[in-house]
Amino acid sequence: MNRLLYLSKKTPPMTVSKMAGSLIGSEIIKIGNEVNEMIKKGAAICNLTIGDFDPAIFPIPDELRDAITQAYAAGQTNYPPANGVAELRTAAANFLHQRLGLTYSPADVLVAGGSRPLIYATYLALLDLGDKVVFPVPSWNNNHYCHLASAEAVMVETSPAHSFMPTAAEIAPHLPGATLLALCSPLNPTGTVFARADLEAICDLVIAENQRRAPSEKPLYILYDQIYWMLTFGTAQHYDPVNLRPELRDYVIYIDGISKCLAATGVRVGYAFGPTEVIDKMKSILGHVGAWAPKAEQIATAQYLPNSTAVDSYTNEFKQKIQRSLDTLYAGLQELKEAGFPVDAIAPAGAIYLTARLDVLGKTTAAGQLLATTRDLTSYLIAEAGLALVPFSAFGNSDTSPWFRLSVGGASLESIEAALPRLRAALTGLQ
Amino acid sequence: MNRLLYLSKKTPPMTVSKMAGSLIGSEIIKIGNEVNEMIKKGAAICNLTIGDFDPAIFPIPDELRDAITQAYAAGQTNYPPANGVAELRTAAANFLHQRLGLTYSPADVLVAGGSRPLIYATYLALLDLGDKVVFPVPSWNNNHYCHLASAEAVMVETSPAHSFMPTAAEIAPHLPGATLLALCSPLNPTGTVFARADLEAICDLVIAENQRRAPSEKPLYILYDQIYWMLTFGTAQHYDPVNLRPELRDYVIYIDGISKCLAATGVRVGYAFGPTEVIDKMKSILGHVGAWAPKAEQIATAQYLPNSTAVDSYTNEFKQKIQRSLDTLYAGLQELKEAGFPVDAIAPAGAIYLTARLDVLGKTTAAGQLLATTRDLTSYLIAEAGLALVPFSAFGNSDTSPWFRLSVGGASLESIEAALPRLRAALTGLQ
Repeated sequence: MNRLLYLSKKTPPMTVSKMAGSLIGSEIIKIGNEVNEMIKKGAAICNLTIGDFDPAIFPIPDELRDAITQAYAAGQTNYPPANGVAELRTAAANFLHQRLGLTYSPADVLVAGGSRPLIYATYLALLDLGDKVVFPVPSWNNNHYCHLASAEAVMVETSPAHSFMPTAAEIAPHLPGATLLALCSPLNPTGTVFARADLEAICDLVIAENQRRAPSEKPLYILYDQIYWMLTFGTAQHYDPVNLRPELRDYVIYIDGISKCLAATGVRVGYAFGPTEVIDKMKSILGHVGAWAPKAEQIATAQYLPNSTAVDSYTNEFKQKIQRSLDTLYAGLQELKEAGFPVDAIAPAGAIYLTARLDVLGKTTAAGQLLATTRDLTSYLIAEAGLALVPFSAFGNSDTSPWFRLSVGGASLESIEAALPRLRAALTGLQ
Repeated sequence: MNRLLYLSKKTPPMTVSKMAGSLIGSEIIKIGNEVNEMIKKGAAICNLTIGDFDPAIFPIPDELRDAITQAYAAGQTNYPPANGVAELRTAAANFLHQRLGLTYSPADVLVAGGSRPLIYATYLALLDLGDKVVFPVPSWNNNHYCHLASAEAVMVETSPAHSFMPTAAEIAPHLPGATLLALCSPLNPTGTVFARADLEAICDLVIAENQRRAPSEKPLYILYDQIYWMLTFGTAQHYDPVNLRPELRDYVIYIDGISKCLAATGVRVGYAFGPTEVIDKMKSILGHVGAWAPKAEQIATAQYLPNSTAVDSYTNEFKQKIQRSLDTLYAGLQELKEAGFPVDAIAPAGAIYLTARLDVLGKTTAAGQLLATTRDLTSYLIAEAGLALVPFSAFGNSDTSPWFRLSVGGASLESIEAALPRLRAALTGLQ
């Protein structure tokens, strides 16, 4: 898919820029709106669409909330420094050192209002017009970032046999000439994680590619989105490039923050870390964009992160709740599979997502409607099963792909349990 | 100044993008760092650099702070909608209607994490590569936004005789072929405001220019930054394009928010409003950039804005304090002028800034240092007078311009009063 097409397209009347005119809105938000309309009308829908949390089920840590209140009481209301308050950059650096064994100076940590601005800033800091960005598909939003940065998206389709995580063999052909390899683990949208050997093999490709390049050439960088790293389940472990291959240090920009692991998506505190020169440029860019985290929340996060007892107690409970929901969905889908339905799921390993296969495209509903695309199926399940999912077509796969993302942060365990028989009934009704 | 130069520049080793590599950091922040170093070493410096507030002198409204705490207690911690919570968009629309007579639907209000992301989004939504942006100089950061958007900056130098506000005669020659005219009133950095007739004349130019354009051409838009509109002093009044010329409605994007008028720069709540199509595109862009206002702060602002008694009481006191500081500086500079020093100032009319002239470049310090540029003079005043100002060279004027911005939000009245004799002594020491 060539994301630069819009540069040569003229579609009068031109009231906005070509980039803006051809920007695609989020497919997830569209489905979310459909669900919200139904809920407003009184429908009981198990909403597994948005990668967000219902605060009634998943509140932020009490200590974090109280620290925000205290920071406001202490008058922490003026501009934070452009790269974030020093206390938070220090706390984040210590946290990464203590929990992941990553050693970064607080000066190489950049705070922003969530992790999205940091992904965006990575793109702008590294990519010239038309530069290639390689990323595995399904992928969360890298296509949009390519569009915004006028970069060329090189989408590498991954396979369910490999839990939709990319392999070195799949990635290798696309690295020559590329500027950025965008990776994510635990992966949004699949809830799967890199196996150690797989990530090592990909890291070795990047090392080899950079060795091949002339000193005058721009190197190949890795954007490593590990925003879900504290959420791994069972035997799954989190791996990252610089721990596995320290010589990659100058080429890896990490995306991190509290949004997902502390259920704090609305608190807007993210951080990135990486090579000084790139982080400094990202700081300048985000300073002008103004995508800063609110100051009181920065101060509060700096106070919370070193409180290991509180962090451990919170994340343990949080993970258990998330895992219980994911396991319930997984077991329910396996039951349906065993009962002969054309469904399947991949065992949950991380993040807040389950990957499910609903292989019923081409079938017809009791009302006589042909389910031709995943969009049809999504609408059918919302209406008939009161169950809202996001098809992988929203993450770059084809619109006939039978795979779906099920996000459990916004739904109670009870509503998930109640939705499974409704799913069974809706599938039973198909011919 | 052609901001597109970097597109044709290759400076090995290319480790970052050309845009990022050639991005200029904020001159204001550089001076701020110099001041902070001195303060750390124990120097008593009257810091009039950053357009920010010392929360000990200028706290946010109590009711706003309490509402933030309550919103957190109520679990407002998950994602806000991409365009802002409905309550805030409604409250902002009502506020604008009630206080400025501007009628916008809440659907045409876009909330973001401060007003900077909204300025940036306006640029991205409207400008194609190389499109012209006309803006008066001195100007706050439009040069950086042009750089980020790969737009051509057309800088129109204004005159002290006209309080540095642009006139129609100055602007007119540059509008043919331009896509955006970026205006600001009350103006950062000058603390001056548009006279009604001047803004009307400029509006009429834009109307005429758009009438001349073919339907297939992109129209000329106005970005109207009115973030300081509640802060006007004496007989000064705030005017805006759509109130003066309703037929401009489809072409004006307003930048607004609570950062300056409620001393809430670290709270990160801004909003823009304007034509539906442009606002919608800005929403999509900022959704991907992720520059959202924190949710609890959105809810709290929505509660605070309709509380007219609280708003009036707060802003009255706030304005008086700001005005007292500005008036003190103005009177002090007039005294120096009358005493024969080559200094002057423009009577404060709005915002938190005073414009001062210190016409001493070319003179030599007692230590024998020639003050060749405003940078030299700035450093001399920090060291000798314990007084930190920002030269207009940081806002696009030449580096020998004798004009300076004095920002009063970060300094107490007492420290301002104490700095004036030090300034006199430092000026006396020049030969």
